[in-house]
Amino acid sequence: MADVHAARRERLRERCGALAADAVLVTRPANVRYLTGVEPDGAALLLTRDRAVLALPEDSPRDPDQQFPPPDEIQRLEVPPGTDPAAAAAAAAARYRAGTLGVEEHDLTVARHRLVTGAAVPARVIDLDRAVEQLRLVKDEDEITALRISAEIADQALGELLESILVGRTERHLAMELERRMVDHGADRAAFPVSIGTGTHAGIAGHRPTDRRVEEGDFLTVALGARYRGYGASAARTFVIGTAPAQWQIDLHAVVFAAQRAGREALQPGTLCQEADRAVREVLQAAGHTEATPRPVGHGTGLEIAEEPRLGPGDMGKLEARVPVTVGPGVHLPGRGGVRIEDTLVVRPLGEGGPELLTITTKELLAL
Amino acid sequence: MADVHAARRERLRERCGALAADAVLVTRPANVRYLTGVEPDGAALLLTRDRAVLALPEDSPRDPDQQFPPPDEIQRLEVPPGTDPAAAAAAAAARYRAGTLGVEEHDLTVARHRLVTGAAVPARVIDLDRAVEQLRLVKDEDEITALRISAEIADQALGELLESILVGRTERHLAMELERRMVDHGADRAAFPVSIGTGTHAGIAGHRPTDRRVEEGDFLTVALGARYRGYGASAARTFVIGTAPAQWQIDLHAVVFAAQRAGREALQPGTLCQEADRAVREVLQAAGHTEATPRPVGHGTGLEIAEEPRLGPGDMGKLEARVPVTVGPGVHLPGRGGVRIEDTLVVRPLGEGGPELLTITTKELLAL
Repeated sequence: MADVHAARRERLRERCGALAADAVLVTRPANVRYLTGVEPDGAALLLTRDRAVLALPEDSPRDPDQQFPPPDEIQRLEVPPGTDPAAAAAAAAARYRAGTLGVEEHDLTVARHRLVTGAAVPARVIDLDRAVEQLRLVKDEDEITALRISAEIADQALGELLESILVGRTERHLAMELERRMVDHGADRAAFPVSIGTGTHAGIAGHRPTDRRVEEGDFLTVALGARYRGYGASAARTFVIGTAPAQWQIDLHAVVFAAQRAGREALQPGTLCQEADRAVREVLQAAGHTEATPRPVGHGTGLEIAEEPRLGPGDMGKLEARVPVTVGPGVHLPGRGGVRIEDTLVVRPLGEGGPELLTITTKELLAL
Repeated sequence: MADVHAARRERLRERCGALAADAVLVTRPANVRYLTGVEPDGAALLLTRDRAVLALPEDSPRDPDQQFPPPDEIQRLEVPPGTDPAAAAAAAAARYRAGTLGVEEHDLTVARHRLVTGAAVPARVIDLDRAVEQLRLVKDEDEITALRISAEIADQALGELLESILVGRTERHLAMELERRMVDHGADRAAFPVSIGTGTHAGIAGHRPTDRRVEEGDFLTVALGARYRGYGASAARTFVIGTAPAQWQIDLHAVVFAAQRAGREALQPGTLCQEADRAVREVLQAAGHTEATPRPVGHGTGLEIAEEPRLGPGDMGKLEARVPVTVGPGVHLPGRGGVRIEDTLVVRPLGEGGPELLTITTKELLAL
């Protein structure tokens, strides 16, 4: 794996040539992990033409079992409490005679940027922007394998929950149980707080679990993802509680399911990101659901649960092979509830079978 | 409660007079909550002399049961996806003819600050710095009650875990179970990821739970906190697994316990923050533990689990009554394990009985 990270750092160095930065300071945790394989709290990575320096608090919490990069590849710079590792790394850049230092202005606060700029003198500080995020866009097969396992873990946890009694339990309790089950199945942790919405809460995107208890006849929306080796896939499903769904529940589920399928089928290398979003909205609006969630219908996923690209109106970027994205439309009818269905898929050319579905849990309207 | 938040906003307006800002933009989530009682994802609060505007994404996940401030007190400004609520609020400030807008430079990234500054034109943007954090420093009795309940919830969850069989279970699994039990006892959620360290991992501050299983003779360190109504107290305890602790375990626990007690006893209104830290270090160093954790021995806690003040070397601020702080020294012997003991206490004058201990779980070296 060390080779992988070294190769990524080399690709970033090449980009920096174009940027006219002869050193870069990476502070966004997912970006530090992408380039080093580790993610100590508060760490900052300095890359010069011939050096890689990982600055981290000497008192930073550390998983003793965590594999650190070999010191011959990455020099370790421990900084005392009260010192900002990013500032220490910027000072090191100056010592290494860097003339221009690229930093992540979308990650550094104004206050930290001020510290870094001061410490970097005489080096000039410029914006690295999302150069590392761009490198992270297309995944290698090892990354996709991690996402596949992440999806399998969530699938196992959800499958177990569906076999248990749900009526009378609170959204909060069900969410915690899913998080525990994902960890039991090998997740580092939940990739994001599990969302459980029942009854009138069902179908709300990102609903925070409450003490509402599951009742007969409820819609039940579950949104979950497991973090595995840093990677997280995301899935959402909606079920009904009880013997038989009501007709409006069947109809609403059918519409969202059809819209979500249309979005999945639009995932082709070379198509515009907004096309997937449009495919979904057309189905929802044809069914009269103009109240459909205003948020983009999907987004990339990887070391961050929501990363580039975004699949929303006006997103003109083109999809590429080996880019994992979510497709997760929802409709919420205030006072009644709603349906959300989300999958994580990897964009693949038709010649390779088209989009690869990672979240394989059934999307049928199960009556539990 | 609405009165409480209105009074806090009024106190902030008074501070802004001194700052020469005639409007402020609050973006740090805990600060938004402190001033409004709510904390929608991505929300930004604009305060002018006579207006309060809460800008939030129209698609932001919302707990439908969450009480929103009465509209007559706080105007709600919903912004479309892709628009930054902070920028929308800054534009509103300009419409309201604010000449100078104070922003939280320790919270805004450089990229967001650029958006805000552009949207605020012709208003001039200055640094509000930690004005709201300063207001949050001394708690009112309602806040202390929330912290007290937070501590009780963690105490209940820990008490239950200690009655169960621990040998053979993984750190990760025990951590998840504690989080679930805290939610069962009424926590919003864990205030921070529960830390469980066993054997050689015991005593490491902020240790991330691994798949290591509890064994006979292990030290077991637990650090946990429940979030209740937004407030979180923090506690750490260290136990031994098995029938009888080894002598070195008894000795190490006694030293850390004595050091922690010295720190607690140093908590008096008017004393310097660094005194509590020094009291702890003197005991540890007298016992020859110069390898004691370099981090400050404690910190304030409230809407954020680690907030001002800091109790570390060189922290010259003075403790005040009704400031909740943690005192949590630890000693870790690489390859052997260690001990951490942390409490959350509220600084009180001696006339009121001195520091009020919130985390009442026994600190004895229990053999489980």
